Amino acid sequence: MLHKRNPQLNSHGELIHLLSIEGLPRQVVTHILDTAETFLSVQEREVKKVPLLRGKSVFNLFFENSTRTRTTFEIAAKRLSADVFNLDISRSSTAKGESLLDTIANLSAMQADMFVVRHSESGAPHLIAQHVAPHVHVINAGDGRHSHPTQGLLDAYTIRHFKRDFSNLTVAVVGDIVHSRVARSDIHALTILGVPEVRAVGPKTLVPGDLREMGVRVCHDMAEGIRGADVIIMLRLQNERMSGGLLPSAGEFFKNFGLTEDKLALAKPDAIVMHPGPINRGVEIASAVADGKHSVILPQVTFGIAVRMAVMSIIAGNEAT
Amino acid sequence: MLHKRNPQLNSHGELIHLLSIEGLPRQVVTHILDTAETFLSVQEREVKKVPLLRGKSVFNLFFENSTRTRTTFEIAAKRLSADVFNLDISRSSTAKGESLLDTIANLSAMQADMFVVRHSESGAPHLIAQHVAPHVHVINAGDGRHSHPTQGLLDAYTIRHFKRDFSNLTVAVVGDIVHSRVARSDIHALTILGVPEVRAVGPKTLVPGDLREMGVRVCHDMAEGIRGADVIIMLRLQNERMSGGLLPSAGEFFKNFGLTEDKLALAKPDAIVMHPGPINRGVEIASAVADGKHSVILPQVTFGIAVRMAVMSIIAGNEAT
Amino acid sequence: MLHKRNPQLNSHGELIHLLSIEGLPRQVVTHILDTAETFLSVQEREVKKVPLLRGKSVFNLFFENSTRTRTTFEIAAKRLSADVFNLDISRSSTAKGESLLDTIANLSAMQADMFVVRHSESGAPHLIAQHVAPHVHVINAGDGRHSHPTQGLLDAYTIRHFKRDFSNLTVAVVGDIVHSRVARSDIHALTILGVPEVRAVGPKTLVPGDLREMGVRVCHDMAEGIRGADVIIMLRLQNERMSGGLLPSAGEFFKNFGLTEDKLALAKPDAIVMHPGPINRGVEIASAVADGKHSVILPQVTFGIAVRMAVMSIIAGNEAT
Repeated sequence: MLHKRNPQLNSHGELIHLLSIEGLPRQVVTHILDTAETFLSVQEREVKKVPLLRGKSVFNLFFENSTRTRTTFEIAAKRLSADVFNLDISRSSTAKGESLLDTIANLSAMQADMFVVRHSESGAPHLIAQHVAPHVHVINAGDGRHSHPTQGLLDAYTIRHFKRDFSNLTVAVVGDIVHSRVARSDIHALTILGVPEVRAVGPKTLVPGDLREMGVRVCHDMAEGIRGADVIIMLRLQNERMSGGLLPSAGEFFKNFGLTEDKLALAKPDAIVMHPGPINRGVEIASAVADGKHSVILPQVTFGIAVRMAVMSIIAGNEAT
Repeated sequence: MLHKRNPQLNSHGELIHLLSIEGLPRQVVTHILDTAETFLSVQEREVKKVPLLRGKSVFNLFFENSTRTRTTFEIAAKRLSADVFNLDISRSSTAKGESLLDTIANLSAMQADMFVVRHSESGAPHLIAQHVAPHVHVINAGDGRHSHPTQGLLDAYTIRHFKRDFSNLTVAVVGDIVHSRVARSDIHALTILGVPEVRAVGPKTLVPGDLREMGVRVCHDMAEGIRGADVIIMLRLQNERMSGGLLPSAGEFFKNFGLTEDKLALAKPDAIVMHPGPINRGVEIASAVADGKHSVILPQVTFGIAVRMAVMSIIAGNEAT
Repeated sequence: MLHKRNPQLNSHGELIHLLSIEGLPRQVVTHILDTAETFLSVQEREVKKVPLLRGKSVFNLFFENSTRTRTTFEIAAKRLSADVFNLDISRSSTAKGESLLDTIANLSAMQADMFVVRHSESGAPHLIAQHVAPHVHVINAGDGRHSHPTQGLLDAYTIRHFKRDFSNLTVAVVGDIVHSRVARSDIHALTILGVPEVRAVGPKTLVPGDLREMGVRVCHDMAEGIRGADVIIMLRLQNERMSGGLLPSAGEFFKNFGLTEDKLALAKPDAIVMHPGPINRGVEIASAVADGKHSVILPQVTFGIAVRMAVMSIIAGNEAT
């Protein structure tokens, strides 16, 4: 082949790692969403387990702490009957000066089958995927500002669940786009799935104009951004951004870009409101909206388990070559 | 119904949460003890697992750290074949400013089946039970000074195991009653089960006179308190109480209220000595007594696993309405 | 019997605890290695679990933190279908002043079947084994400078795997011998298995002359130490030793005793290079050697899981008396 192969796919175009949504073929994304749908019914059964990953060893390698995300992967893996190992990385050999790749080589030698990796440095999961043994699969659970592909997929799942069809939608992603791996993964997923209008909404410091290169419509005015939208994805405002001088104050951000019932009235009457969580009430979203009838924030969480089960079971079933 | 229903019971009077022993009907308590008895034999089998909670997701939410208590619930849940998730709450979303109820709503959306909650604030498990989805069950693993119902039940189980019948017993609870959720749960359990004389024994600072309202006999003299007792429950003396000026010194406490062989001679010849652990040797109990033939402190631990298995399996089998 | 019985063996000479390699009969060691060989094939199967420890409760008690070693035992136990409990000892009752033996007595009362113990004090696992109930088995996962028996066994396994026969081998153990429980366990294992020449190689501060009492040849010159060796075991250099004045600098240590390709050329052409990990690249071993064709460092990790499965399954099947 003349073009470089996507490192997430084997020679048959099947998914073997999930590192980023960018560059995934639409049928691969759709296959994940379809598979997730079958797992949703599993979650409602009396016995919520299926034996698809029985005897497999899944390692959660969270170099950046996130109890909530780690728990969702742990739940997904255990419902597939895998054995799950949570490594307290900050206390482990990397603290003794061992390199990332030596740590990975060692865990691979313990016959690991899958690594779920969160890392503060963009590209760490790619680096790991390049070096693991052929039988090992890697899932990116968030790397730096780069990518958070399972969040992108669960957001796509949620939109499909409530809106059925992507081909006529207007989706507004609101808040700190520039620092957000969630926004980046959402935009890639929605573009691949054929959403005709994706808007990036927020102040100039957080939504720079060159985001247009990703194919989105940049809006620095909230009313313009959410008017007529079918879907509004509110991003979490990281407190550390505010102290960094990029924003005047949480109060001012809420006044301009926080989602209130008044602003929500500009969107379509049947618009849905999404958020990756945990929410900052009164910072990026009003409680009345977070808890209101347009909110699908808790269904997102439920769908997130099913999507992660889908990704794990799909990649575990595909050979490296 | 004119009276407010006990939030732990459904409309058929069946246990759906375990929040407090106060107000539980005697037959509910007895049913737990009877069920625990069947699990004791499970613990002695070669394969110590039963499939009653297979596929269920039990979340340990310890907002107040207690490795020992958390471990007993984890053992109980795994012996029922549940999947157990230990959340490191201090590092999780609550640390990011997420409210307790948002955390609970999120975990419920992950299809949790049961929350085991320890919290430094009295009433937190009740608050959670009021807000969970109907399929979710809540167990209080200790809240503030309020309640520690599984400890109360395992103490009742231990007494029944060694004394057979509650109706003729004198039980002395000795030490820091006022700050003790164990004492409160024990007193409620013993009263419900028909123990005719429960004594609260300790200095005036730790056993105030208004404890009489709970139906107990208050004794500020150790000899009076344990004379003729069938059961002596020694409480753990929290070190932080001593620095607070409520007590002169550990040495003085031991002299007056520590259980020695001399003092134990005042009780019935076949009296049993109990303690919720971990014991402070030489502070509230002499080593000769803790390790002596009247001590049933280690059987309490064994029974505690069976009682927790009983509570979990009973509430998991009952519908919310 | 006139001589004191080895506390690791029952009256039939069967292994019931693994505390130290010292004093184990050769057939017991060989039986462990043979059993490990059968588990290696398990690890390569699609479903990597066997039900030998189903329903058993294995407690990891790491009083000294080691994420890597703890993980290897957790993997081994789960592949045998045991329930595994990782106790965060530093936050548990021992922090509340409870004694080691009270902690052990309590966990035994919870029907523990096996304790895997790491402790900074030499002899702690022996002390525990003396006090547990008859149905409980103890494995030493490293105690002070004393012993690390599963490392010694996995090193023996690795040597047997690559060299087939112990009876003609020269094995060099290089580095900080005096502080190393790995070196001590390796030397005992190799001596028991009949290796005719074991060399202890390093500077005088780290390899004192009285090591000769263990039956080894002491070499303070690296060239003499590895010349003609079939096996070179490099030890990890603990950074804290260097600050203690026992060594001039990491650079100087590497110059004299670090394993480079040049020095390796002195060994047999088919020599294997081993290391317990994690490696310090450029301190005790050059990257070219660690990653080179003589290195069997990663196979050691794989064999380590199988050896731990073997030890666990063997002791769990033997009665205390």
